[in-house]
Amino acid sequence: MTVGIIGGGQLGRMMALAGYPLGLDFLFLDPSREAPAGKVAPVVHAQFTDPKVLKWLSQHCQVLTFDWENISVEALRKHAAGARRARICPPVPALATAQDRVAEKRLFERLDIPTTRWRAVGSRAQLERAVREIGLPGVLKTRRMGYDGKGQMRIGSHEDLERAWQSLGSVPLIYEEWVPFECEVSIIGARSTRGETVFYPLNGNVHAEGILRVTRAPYGTARWQRTAVDYLSRCLSHFRYAGVLNIEFFVRKGRLIANEMAPRVHNSGHWTIEGSVTSQFENHLRAILGLPLGSTRPTGHSAMINLIGEMPAREALLGIPGLHLHDYGKQPRPGRKLGHCTLVEPTAALRDRLSRRVLAQVAPGVRLP
Amino acid sequence: MTVGIIGGGQLGRMMALAGYPLGLDFLFLDPSREAPAGKVAPVVHAQFTDPKVLKWLSQHCQVLTFDWENISVEALRKHAAGARRARICPPVPALATAQDRVAEKRLFERLDIPTTRWRAVGSRAQLERAVREIGLPGVLKTRRMGYDGKGQMRIGSHEDLERAWQSLGSVPLIYEEWVPFECEVSIIGARSTRGETVFYPLNGNVHAEGILRVTRAPYGTARWQRTAVDYLSRCLSHFRYAGVLNIEFFVRKGRLIANEMAPRVHNSGHWTIEGSVTSQFENHLRAILGLPLGSTRPTGHSAMINLIGEMPAREALLGIPGLHLHDYGKQPRPGRKLGHCTLVEPTAALRDRLSRRVLAQVAPGVRLP
Repeated sequence: MTVGIIGGGQLGRMMALAGYPLGLDFLFLDPSREAPAGKVAPVVHAQFTDPKVLKWLSQHCQVLTFDWENISVEALRKHAAGARRARICPPVPALATAQDRVAEKRLFERLDIPTTRWRAVGSRAQLERAVREIGLPGVLKTRRMGYDGKGQMRIGSHEDLERAWQSLGSVPLIYEEWVPFECEVSIIGARSTRGETVFYPLNGNVHAEGILRVTRAPYGTARWQRTAVDYLSRCLSHFRYAGVLNIEFFVRKGRLIANEMAPRVHNSGHWTIEGSVTSQFENHLRAILGLPLGSTRPTGHSAMINLIGEMPAREALLGIPGLHLHDYGKQPRPGRKLGHCTLVEPTAALRDRLSRRVLAQVAPGVRLP
Repeated sequence: MTVGIIGGGQLGRMMALAGYPLGLDFLFLDPSREAPAGKVAPVVHAQFTDPKVLKWLSQHCQVLTFDWENISVEALRKHAAGARRARICPPVPALATAQDRVAEKRLFERLDIPTTRWRAVGSRAQLERAVREIGLPGVLKTRRMGYDGKGQMRIGSHEDLERAWQSLGSVPLIYEEWVPFECEVSIIGARSTRGETVFYPLNGNVHAEGILRVTRAPYGTARWQRTAVDYLSRCLSHFRYAGVLNIEFFVRKGRLIANEMAPRVHNSGHWTIEGSVTSQFENHLRAILGLPLGSTRPTGHSAMINLIGEMPAREALLGIPGLHLHDYGKQPRPGRKLGHCTLVEPTAALRDRLSRRVLAQVAPGVRLP
């Protein structure tokens, strides 16, 4: 059975590594000759929108999925409309919603999931009005194509507003209130084509410069967990979803405020490879193939630390007892996610102590709260 | 960094899957177009002894290793003698010893490791004398190329002797005493090129028709563990070994009696993928590359059950809570190892209960003692 994956980044690569033991084969589509998945599976090098290649992929795969969300919904819709095409999972409407911050906000509101106050911004006048109505400080973001902190600017004053408009104003925007959150958490769950659902324990995330640096799990209170599962369930049901879905929340005064969702395996779930019985990658594959979902039970207290910009020496990392290294095989570049490492310890205190030691070595500027 | 692997079977495949997260690349040599490693890495299809291909592999890899032991020692020695050749790990003398049951017995005796009584058999007359000196029952085995119970016959009477001679007498043989063992155990350890060593907890093995069916770990008493580590250490030091080495023992009246060794990752260590902090596959790679070895701490009580002859339905297996499936992607054939599954439970009792349930489904004839 062959799974076609649109996008051959590290997420696709880890999906293939999780799927081989299940007896699955993989075919990737990625325009880049350096796609990390290329080392572990065949990659067709073509544009994501190329209808001929999508058709070919569909003929050679039982199901199509994707490893990032900035792919053309229009191309996928056109493709899916053809005869005898492989199913696309997760569903394209979920992808379309996640691609547009305004659609995402509307979804959260429709499903009664608390989210930040916001206004769509299409002109300088609308931005001024949005700032008047929502107040300062706030964040101006591009509606589309934002990731890892790209395409967003904090607005604290009217001078910031001018600068942000100059910088981002050429595309549709959204203005959101700034939430002075106590922490950021995310939840990952899976729904299978047969309607079965599973949920991982909450992830506690630390960002710096808009990029995820550290995830710790399990994280937070039992009430947060119940609330997050409830909100994620609403989204899974809404889309009659198949695959892994992620929602990120701000936590303020014990309230979970949805920030955004990702209709795919997620960086904040990488700890599940070693830290839970079944990884998010394996459960995504099980879900889209209609196989029984695997246990999400954590096997300890995990921390995942991203390796960004340059890879530390392999020997130094592997010398740290219990450290699991994941090198994506990418060329170093400032701000680029090149790999991650995971620690699984019997207690949260041990995990945090070891995490601080690793952070001092690989990301000296990042502090664990 | 590229690792060349001679042999593209399931062991090589699992080695590649363990090595990709370390940022390693792989090149396999295997004559078969259906080699299981072929789905996950490039395979050069040629004879294992082809000097041109070995040279090419050597030029493209930092180190060469192998995933089974029935490869030509002569070809490897000739190859290694050439200029600017990649290191071969584990060392060829260890491979040569493991290929010949007589050399293996002599090694055990030299290192003061208890083993079965034995005689080399090159003629019918030598067989008669061996039976007189060692007694009945015994086992007649080919000195070379035996695996999974192939090339050996039990001799309980003089009639059996005739039949066994007719069947095996065309090649050099060894006659060994039959040990009425209480159980079979094996130990797996690794020594790195820098001399660091680690040892996994003992494996308790159940064979049927000469093929490993089930491994449970950790297994046996602390004294058995100490003894096995001591014996394995002697072998590792003797060869100034690099890589993973396995020794199988019979246990009789609390004594460990060495049966055979394998200079490679071993079927009885497959549980380490999920059941210990670092798998035998990852530690083999770390060892041959001179990287720090990983923790061998077990994360629970594991059972590994081989899937032989035909694959059970994927859905049924994945429906068993906590079961980890490893499908090697091979064509079914009677007696062929097609995959395995692993369970990791918090207690030995829970593990055994679940193992019996899985065995009833996938190998109804196999009983756990």
